[in-house]
Amino acid sequence: VRAVVLSIGSELVTGLTLDTHAREMARALGAIGIPVVRFEVLDDCLEELAAAFARAATDADVVVASGGLGPTLDDLTRDALARAMGVPLETHPEAAAHLEAWARSRGRPLSESHRRQAAVPRGSTPIPNPIGTAPGLDACLGRARVFCVPGVPGEMRRMLADHVIPALKAQAPERVSLVRTVRTLGVPESILGDRLGDLMARGRRPTVATAVHVGIIDVHIHASGPREEAERLLEADAAEVRRRLGRAVFGEGDDRLEDIVARLLAQRRATVAVAESCTGGLVAAKLVNVPGISESLLEGLVTYSDESKVRRLGVPERLLAEHGAVSEPVARAMAEGARAQAGADLAVAVTGIAGPSGGTPQKPVGTVWFAVSDVRGTEAAREVFLGDRIHIRERAANAALNMLRLRLSE
Amino acid sequence: VRAVVLSIGSELVTGLTLDTHAREMARALGAIGIPVVRFEVLDDCLEELAAAFARAATDADVVVASGGLGPTLDDLTRDALARAMGVPLETHPEAAAHLEAWARSRGRPLSESHRRQAAVPRGSTPIPNPIGTAPGLDACLGRARVFCVPGVPGEMRRMLADHVIPALKAQAPERVSLVRTVRTLGVPESILGDRLGDLMARGRRPTVATAVHVGIIDVHIHASGPREEAERLLEADAAEVRRRLGRAVFGEGDDRLEDIVARLLAQRRATVAVAESCTGGLVAAKLVNVPGISESLLEGLVTYSDESKVRRLGVPERLLAEHGAVSEPVARAMAEGARAQAGADLAVAVTGIAGPSGGTPQKPVGTVWFAVSDVRGTEAAREVFLGDRIHIRERAANAALNMLRLRLSE
Repeated sequence: VRAVVLSIGSELVTGLTLDTHAREMARALGAIGIPVVRFEVLDDCLEELAAAFARAATDADVVVASGGLGPTLDDLTRDALARAMGVPLETHPEAAAHLEAWARSRGRPLSESHRRQAAVPRGSTPIPNPIGTAPGLDACLGRARVFCVPGVPGEMRRMLADHVIPALKAQAPERVSLVRTVRTLGVPESILGDRLGDLMARGRRPTVATAVHVGIIDVHIHASGPREEAERLLEADAAEVRRRLGRAVFGEGDDRLEDIVARLLAQRRATVAVAESCTGGLVAAKLVNVPGISESLLEGLVTYSDESKVRRLGVPERLLAEHGAVSEPVARAMAEGARAQAGADLAVAVTGIAGPSGGTPQKPVGTVWFAVSDVRGTEAAREVFLGDRIHIRERAANAALNMLRLRLSE
Repeated sequence: VRAVVLSIGSELVTGLTLDTHAREMARALGAIGIPVVRFEVLDDCLEELAAAFARAATDADVVVASGGLGPTLDDLTRDALARAMGVPLETHPEAAAHLEAWARSRGRPLSESHRRQAAVPRGSTPIPNPIGTAPGLDACLGRARVFCVPGVPGEMRRMLADHVIPALKAQAPERVSLVRTVRTLGVPESILGDRLGDLMARGRRPTVATAVHVGIIDVHIHASGPREEAERLLEADAAEVRRRLGRAVFGEGDDRLEDIVARLLAQRRATVAVAESCTGGLVAAKLVNVPGISESLLEGLVTYSDESKVRRLGVPERLLAEHGAVSEPVARAMAEGARAQAGADLAVAVTGIAGPSGGTPQKPVGTVWFAVSDVRGTEAAREVFLGDRIHIRERAANAALNMLRLRLSE
């Protein structure tokens, strides 16, 4: 059993509105073991929609569509499904009664445009809408079961939870489709690809795939089958991925790097201070994402000017003059100064060139120096990141958090 | 001329990651008069991808795909396009040279998996990637022109702007579909809806619609037709929206609040310091998003602990004891202290309760005090934001930037 998800609306294909329904549906379907082969986002156009229904019913056993069920003339989902099914639209008595009752409750007559919502393709069943006017549709097209739900988020969610998912659960009870994600930072993608190559081989089950976001590489492991078997396969693969990637693995699932750092700080009852230049407060802001961080984070210093580095962190002017603000000695002095001035157990410092200007042949845009300091001493590292200003700074902030993590887990 | 947009990645169809690339591409294509008939979001599966390319090339004249160009084995876009075109993959000398140069610059040998990125379907052209490793692809499939760009957001945007859009502009028609966006902060959505009600009426052209993101309300105006006419309509509506919303309007299009603040700071040759508690560095980090901000931003202080507020900003301990850290007197003292200690012309301070714990009946979660200080004096304001920790902090950071904006534009 596999599904295609359709999102219908002109405002979606013009880019005015971001479609988030397909993603919600994919998660809900995945959780009951139905993988989604694709989403399509479609215009309110009768021929296009009819073709999309036909195509989806050929490629999948389940089709879930949202949008285009409203009362206006550009709502064409009912008409398109009827055309794809090769049947006429017919007024459904129960749906009509629901609309009549709704109109009565507002003391208005039912308008012609609202009355259109009681029409369903012959042979299909309306799905009740307890919180709106448009009923959904539950239909068969070829060998596929097709569900249409409104685009209004609350109504979509309600019908998905109350009708679509229960109906499909009955038809696909024991199989599930589960994803487990191992999160890593520190092994470049190509090396990670080499280390996990056999696990990622085409056709292997479970499937193992990677996705990169600003330096973090997520390893997604995907297994389908009876729940126990799928869970066993995921467990084995996750353990193998962890073994092969070692200290680069920082968490699983929705773990953020800052969550892990905050947890390590709390476990060790350690306090931390942050000194930032190019990241401009991102490292501190990420830590502050974590509730309860006030137990560990004493302060963050965004010493953007040289003068601020000297005055706030005690970086010797000589170092700035001799080596420049983006240098190993300055990064070290920043971390040591931040730690001493805040009276913290640990400090991390970041100084770099985020661009677009300011680069030189020796220190190209993307050059970032990091230092982490604690009672055992100070360690520095350099990275050269590719990308634009935002990307370089996000990567630098993640790298700084990762240095804290590694130091804390030594 | 019409387009189909493809977004490729397992993490997208499983619902782990929300696709936003298709929307960005639809906007960029619409702006040069190329309507998008549909998006498809696809799994990393060779057969599915090859079928999607073939289908898209049948239904549209232009196909733009993002994702699946990385070095790992689950990156199958190149292979799928070659299969749909019925040609083999071949190493492209220029692409290979780019990858070799990239590897040399890092002092590492080029790995086998990276080398795969130099392969292109026979007859297609690699699109240079100045900020990453994966080249894009510019190819012909049937009568359609196909562009493939990386899924990394910065690389996608760069190739779209530098290659795809210019290439298509050359072949674009007279009719355009344009969106103009007026960005506002400070007028609540319901009041804004009342003020713009007649412009937003259904069926009116141009269409006017609003979208809210963490306190910022964007007013999108959408017009189609011959370019001159569409531009005239947009210009008239944008002027009307600006007139009705007054000082709440901070910019247009892609203007970020921080861009406007940075521009005002530069115009007035003013320097600024930032003192943050609950936002934890977000205000400073947003300012540092703007290239060249080093001329204006002297420093940011993330005084997360009370002790840090006293030591770094000179907030009197008495005020903290009497009023608590989230209070008008402390916000004022933070702004004044930050301004004095940094020797800045202007300072802004934020202190609040981001939750989930720490709220009281008098100061519920979401309570945030702001202060802005300059030579004319100090002004404070309080807001109570709804939402989770992340949302409250993002809204607070935007509100702080907005206070700076309003003070600077007085």
